[in-house]
Amino acid sequence: MSEKTVAILGATGVVGQQMLQCLEERNFPVGRLVPLASERSVGKPVTFRGEDVPCQLAAADAFEGVDIVLGAADDATARALLPEAVKRGAVCVDNSHAFRLEPDVPLVVPEVNAADIAAHHGIIANPNCATIIGLVPVWPLHQAAGLTRLIVSTYQAASGAGKPGLDELVREIRCVAAGEPVGESAPFQYQLAENLIPQIGGFNEEGYTSEEMKMQNEGRKIMHLPELRVNCTCVRVPVVRSHSESITCEFERPISVDEARAILEAAPGVKVVDDPATSRYPMPLETSDQDLIYVGRLRRDLSAPEGVSSLTFWCCGDQIRKGAATNAVQIAEYLV
Amino acid sequence: MSEKTVAILGATGVVGQQMLQCLEERNFPVGRLVPLASERSVGKPVTFRGEDVPCQLAAADAFEGVDIVLGAADDATARALLPEAVKRGAVCVDNSHAFRLEPDVPLVVPEVNAADIAAHHGIIANPNCATIIGLVPVWPLHQAAGLTRLIVSTYQAASGAGKPGLDELVREIRCVAAGEPVGESAPFQYQLAENLIPQIGGFNEEGYTSEEMKMQNEGRKIMHLPELRVNCTCVRVPVVRSHSESITCEFERPISVDEARAILEAAPGVKVVDDPATSRYPMPLETSDQDLIYVGRLRRDLSAPEGVSSLTFWCCGDQIRKGAATNAVQIAEYLV
Ligand SMILES: NC(=O)c1ccc[n+]([C@@H]2O[C@H](COP(=O)([O-])OP(=O)(O)OC[C@H]3O[C@@H](n4cnc5c(N)ncnc54)[C@H](OP(=O)(O)O)[C@@H]3O)[C@@H](O)[C@H]2O)c1
Ligand SMILES: NC(=O)c1ccc[n+]([C@@H]2O[C@H](COP(=O)([O-])OP(=O)(O)OC[C@H]3O[C@@H](n4cnc5c(N)ncnc54)[C@H](OP(=O)(O)O)[C@@H]3O)[C@@H](O)[C@H]2O)c1
Repeated sequence: MSEKTVAILGATGVVGQQMLQCLEERNFPVGRLVPLASERSVGKPVTFRGEDVPCQLAAADAFEGVDIVLGAADDATARALLPEAVKRGAVCVDNSHAFRLEPDVPLVVPEVNAADIAAHHGIIANPNCATIIGLVPVWPLHQAAGLTRLIVSTYQAASGAGKPGLDELVREIRCVAAGEPVGESAPFQYQLAENLIPQIGGFNEEGYTSEEMKMQNEGRKIMHLPELRVNCTCVRVPVVRSHSESITCEFERPISVDEARAILEAAPGVKVVDDPATSRYPMPLETSDQDLIYVGRLRRDLSAPEGVSSLTFWCCGDQIRKGAATNAVQIAEYLV
Repeated sequence: MSEKTVAILGATGVVGQQMLQCLEERNFPVGRLVPLASERSVGKPVTFRGEDVPCQLAAADAFEGVDIVLGAADDATARALLPEAVKRGAVCVDNSHAFRLEPDVPLVVPEVNAADIAAHHGIIANPNCATIIGLVPVWPLHQAAGLTRLIVSTYQAASGAGKPGLDELVREIRCVAAGEPVGESAPFQYQLAENLIPQIGGFNEEGYTSEEMKMQNEGRKIMHLPELRVNCTCVRVPVVRSHSESITCEFERPISVDEARAILEAAPGVKVVDDPATSRYPMPLETSDQDLIYVGRLRRDLSAPEGVSSLTFWCCGDQIRKGAATNAVQIAEYLV
């Protein structure tokens, strides 16, 4: 495998930092690393394979000679810069929302639709983190029984809001422990420590948030199910890392709990952790800093109407790794 | 209104302490207060109307001359002692699970089925806290459109596990803030700070927890809907006080979001807090220490199959007040 020049757009953020670690861990053939960030970070070193590499300014000419760009910046930065990288011959795997729903941009969870990667025109999008974490276990069940409806309630970690979110929860927990007022809570709308915030992103006219609509719109595109019915409620919870989801899925065809368990046990990217007798189930503290989606609490949906095939389960995964950095590096592996 | 002798069984616990405050706030006609607890607390004072009243040992003869018992102890204590109180002429309103499903015991949320109180034989049961918080808004929607199916994911506070749960979360948050290991997490199965635990109670053969089955079994009894289909996932979250719930309800008849909103705005015990434009929605920090169930994020269920009437919303309520103490005192008010 020939070595590649790899740029990370947003190398100082939580996803960018995790990308560096994933490239190292997975022995990605990086010949030269080009860490890019805003002018705030120019010259600031990032560590890769034990060496400090200074950040450069993210600007069009920084992509000269770059083979692969891993995008870990905000939507506006991605929209402004990734087309410049493509013009200069790079292929981009982007974590922002900017290109995800564009018809000529593949939106990929490798366990689900790796075959879509080949159709790219220079940009491949990484899906929303909660969507990736939900779809990794939903997809093999869909293949077996034909998914018709998804009802999801999420429990999303502070670091889903990037480094500012992570730092803010840590700060608030210190305030609360010290009995001090928390004050201004940016990037969150309200205090998150000891609280729950049922808003991630902005609202549409129907009262759904942008984060909630991603589960529907990205889910439909990734699974090639343009009519899939999805109801999602996204809630920010005072957890540092790893998103969790309570999922109910309805299917066209009958599927028993035992069949579903066997399918999930064999599914790529999934680890079944489900033993009520010993109180074993997925929890964010145990799923952080690894790449599998843990699935448990698998059971029959007791509310399913007569004749409706429906299952319920709970899953957790590290949204910085499989929900972002690892998924992007996996896609990049298909490119080399 | 003649004054009553009121005993509180479990007067030192979080629910018992809140009952004292509710009796005071609501000007309940308490002539004499009899605080009861275990031998650990005998002689320990509780404060009522500015005066210290020493706890007595909870034993059969402590109920002599008592008119009303408010039960705020565990199932075993309730099962052992409340029949003794009834024998001595008292009427008991009990918060434990012990009697809730007994056919001759009314299970009451006053906003839903106050009429059932009259049929009591000495014991009236207070429902599970998550069930009360969900049913206060679900009931008026049911009356309008005929509830057929409930899908609920809960976000339950540490103090739902009583004083030990409350103290443990406070302790763990201090450990986490100080960077110290949390160690043993009783009464929780695992560390709760910065984590989520998808288990409340024990598991049945189908993989549902006892807390989850309460939503079905108690919900059916309270609403007189013996066939109601309920799917509940109960999760403990690192919140001190106030339970939250993500609820999807299917109905027999069409009901629009606007109709539902008007119904909820007029419903007893409900406060609609739902303004996406200004990021207003229920949150546990804002719903603690008051008696209403806050409802928001009301919207059409985008996943509803063709022809199925379905709504989704989010609600929060103080599970120590409306989920326990206030609900019990409201029932006692019907008795006097
Ligand atoms: N956090 C997650 O769990 C997660 C999961 C999936 C997807 N994502 C997506 O991944 C992307 C990165 O998220 P994050 O959580 O890593 O955010 P973050 O921690 O806030 O990091 C943002 C990164 O973007 C850089 N950046 C900001 N403005 C820039 C500009 N004008 N020009 C160049 N670089 C700029 C920052 O550099 P400076 O240090 O110089 O400001 C930093 O490296 C976002 O699109 C996010 O939606 C995040
Ligand atoms: N916490 C909630 O949010 C909530 C909501 C709805 C319903 N409930 C139910 O309400 C009841 C009380 O819960 P809680 O949260 O208040 O629990 P808690 O804080 O642990 O208090 C338990 C109370 O029961 C007393 N008690 C324990 N063992 C006893 C014994 N052998 N004899 C007499 N009294 C005894 C304790 O007295 P000592 O101080 O002497 O030990 C204490 O007063 C439980 O059945 C619970 O399921 C609780």
